[in-house]
Amino acid sequence: MSSRFGALREEAWRANAEIPKLGLAILTWGNASALDRSAGVFAIKPSGLEYDELKPENMVIVDLEGKVVEGELRPSSDTKTHLVLYRAFEGISGVCHSHSTHAVAWAQARRPIPCFGTTHADQTAGSVPCTDMISAAELERDYELSTGELIVRSFEGRDPLHTPMVLVAGHGPFTWGRGALEAVRYAAALEEMARMAILTLAVDPEAEALPEHVVRKHWERKHGKNAYYGQKK
Amino acid sequence: MSSRFGALREEAWRANAEIPKLGLAILTWGNASALDRSAGVFAIKPSGLEYDELKPENMVIVDLEGKVVEGELRPSSDTKTHLVLYRAFEGISGVCHSHSTHAVAWAQARRPIPCFGTTHADQTAGSVPCTDMISAAELERDYELSTGELIVRSFEGRDPLHTPMVLVAGHGPFTWGRGALEAVRYAAALEEMARMAILTLAVDPEAEALPEHVVRKHWERKHGKNAYYGQKK
Amino acid sequence: MSSRFGALREEAWRANAEIPKLGLAILTWGNASALDRSAGVFAIKPSGLEYDELKPENMVIVDLEGKVVEGELRPSSDTKTHLVLYRAFEGISGVCHSHSTHAVAWAQARRPIPCFGTTHADQTAGSVPCTDMISAAELERDYELSTGELIVRSFEGRDPLHTPMVLVAGHGPFTWGRGALEAVRYAAALEEMARMAILTLAVDPEAEALPEHVVRKHWERKHGKNAYYGQKK
Amino acid sequence: MSSRFGALREEAWRANAEIPKLGLAILTWGNASALDRSAGVFAIKPSGLEYDELKPENMVIVDLEGKVVEGELRPSSDTKTHLVLYRAFEGISGVCHSHSTHAVAWAQARRPIPCFGTTHADQTAGSVPCTDMISAAELERDYELSTGELIVRSFEGRDPLHTPMVLVAGHGPFTWGRGALEAVRYAAALEEMARMAILTLAVDPEAEALPEHVVRKHWERKHGKNAYYGQKK
Repeated sequence: MSSRFGALREEAWRANAEIPKLGLAILTWGNASALDRSAGVFAIKPSGLEYDELKPENMVIVDLEGKVVEGELRPSSDTKTHLVLYRAFEGISGVCHSHSTHAVAWAQARRPIPCFGTTHADQTAGSVPCTDMISAAELERDYELSTGELIVRSFEGRDPLHTPMVLVAGHGPFTWGRGALEAVRYAAALEEMARMAILTLAVDPEAEALPEHVVRKHWERKHGKNAYYGQKK
Repeated sequence: MSSRFGALREEAWRANAEIPKLGLAILTWGNASALDRSAGVFAIKPSGLEYDELKPENMVIVDLEGKVVEGELRPSSDTKTHLVLYRAFEGISGVCHSHSTHAVAWAQARRPIPCFGTTHADQTAGSVPCTDMISAAELERDYELSTGELIVRSFEGRDPLHTPMVLVAGHGPFTWGRGALEAVRYAAALEEMARMAILTLAVDPEAEALPEHVVRKHWERKHGKNAYYGQKK
Repeated sequence: MSSRFGALREEAWRANAEIPKLGLAILTWGNASALDRSAGVFAIKPSGLEYDELKPENMVIVDLEGKVVEGELRPSSDTKTHLVLYRAFEGISGVCHSHSTHAVAWAQARRPIPCFGTTHADQTAGSVPCTDMISAAELERDYELSTGELIVRSFEGRDPLHTPMVLVAGHGPFTWGRGALEAVRYAAALEEMARMAILTLAVDPEAEALPEHVVRKHWERKHGKNAYYGQKK
Repeated sequence: MSSRFGALREEAWRANAEIPKLGLAILTWGNASALDRSAGVFAIKPSGLEYDELKPENMVIVDLEGKVVEGELRPSSDTKTHLVLYRAFEGISGVCHSHSTHAVAWAQARRPIPCFGTTHADQTAGSVPCTDMISAAELERDYELSTGELIVRSFEGRDPLHTPMVLVAGHGPFTWGRGALEAVRYAAALEEMARMAILTLAVDPEAEALPEHVVRKHWERKHGKNAYYGQKK
């Protein structure tokens, strides 16, 4: 298939293929998308397909108004949520929605995940926020669009690039990044953080969050301007 | 082996082969069957065989009175439970009984699984019911037949196609669908829903069920008459 | 290597190889043995070897006094415990000691595993017993021999063939059977029963044991004289 | 690449490759190093690389002052912690820092792991210590160096060869051994001990530690001067 969006499809397909490999969803659950901001379109998983049926060719190209630009299949039912995030969070070019078990558990309990340790602090600055429960009115208006807006609202005064992840109350996690693969890697990290946090509470139901000086240090050594984790780019 | 029921055996065999692959039972535990409603027979796993010994040829063909029509082996000891479900639930053509760990835990605790989130609501309309514990009298009369009747009784006033799954108290899950593979997929979904629900209680023992407007929305966007999840058929 | 005990070594080796495959121990932990009762010897895993170093040839042949009859390597440090079980439980020809995670948890909590459901009742008649903690005097006399005696003592008035498994307090599970492979399969079943029981308590800390009429029924349909689970032998 | 340190790189690379295989960390998390004490240098994982990008050639050679002696990449951000351990604990030649889930949970709860059973006692003499939380002043001075010093301080009056593992509060486990592979094996053992301990508390929140006579016996039969576990060396 010839397409202006071959590379974008390829990126979205690779990211979606990682979801079941990393154990972040079973059956047809979950989805990832990749944005080409200059072209104003993103490639997203078609709705309800099995992961092993996916190919670069069946990724759906959607513009930032939600119109299908290329592709024969219906895009993911969560497409409008991705779209709202791309519009609101300027630095991002990839979104992932997983159904990973432990992150969903926190979302279902409608609780932010406290930053109990450095594994968590390496990924995000502080706790992982949890949105409000969607109201009946918001749901009636447009369920998936409102879900995106609930996420954006929970980031008021917070930098989405410093906390590339959120829990949607009663639903599950969304993560994002500079590309679709980075978004999926944050989904994997979030699942592990969520699992560690539940187990921390199993050891001590009164466990305290990591002191602020350690949270800041870990985040800065990995993401700050004097970062020394990883290799120079 | 020439048989009028080659395709039915094949379907039942494929469905049974999925049980251990999806991690829904170990050793010889669990079983699935596929019904040909027009012929009035179903193909079911033989009793006590290892999953890797199974072949389409050793599936047992049983009629809706429980008589073996074809096959040299004894059918699953749970055959009569499958039979009762096929008789009572007209729209179904596949049944699966797994021993999946977390669904069994809820069955052993004899509790319905609350609908804590959208992962659950995507699969069933509301909580997953749990039958009453079988009485000594019911057990004496016919254990497996009575087990089927306990299930049917727990669906009074409830559509078995909207909730394609149940927990048998003290025993484990049964799921069903329009075919045997769909029944097994619901068993996989149920196991994940059961696991998420236990973890939700680990985060918050007082966790509340999903509000009714979200339950309804998720079920309807996937299964309702204006469903927009998945592809048009 | 020519040996009178080639088949016995082979059986013991196969059984030991199943231990890590079934997820019942990591590293060098755990061991299984196979008895030839007429010859009065058993083949057992050598001590401290990695599972992937094992071969039929390095299984150690030991007699029922604990003397090494054939083999260059030291037998498992738990050899005397196996020996005591072979002497005391006449119908058995295989023993397995695993370090499986959830069974060890019950052993460490020094609690019998209640029979919460039919998955458990299919394997054993009632709860899985837990021995007393070994005393300093018993330990001084002969640690591994005393461990075997603690197990035997916990079966007073109980048929070891109806309950082919035990928890040694503070240590872990031992299982047995008519052969070494059957012993390992009971170890796998016990691990799953132990895991389900912990999760049952997570759903309901006050969960009740299965009523006696269901326990008896399940055990009898599988192991009783009118058993109808599995195929005629 | 010709290097005086080919064998050391190879050992460090093998040890790092075991970390994801044994399930002790995901993504780029965790690191292991191998020391050549006579040469006064160790080989360590480069910072932030994916495990499947690792090769013997990209291990970084660092001396005991922390200076990079060979290698183009930045060494692990935890390098100074390894260095402090090599300086303080004379008998060791390998260090591993994993992010294994259950060990991290104990570290995040800032609790030593009680010795609940013989699986634990086979590995270490008594509970697994947990350091103090790092203070802001210690962190400012030199985060990774101070982390090493916190570990060393928690071993005052305790033999690091008898307890080859520690939890860093709010962070995670460090383990060590006579070589890098032994250090990684202790990391695997620690993870399993940590998991069993959480499950033991799930069975009985008041579970008691193993009596001292059993702790001593198990440690001595494996590591004491009359050890009889494993093969003669």
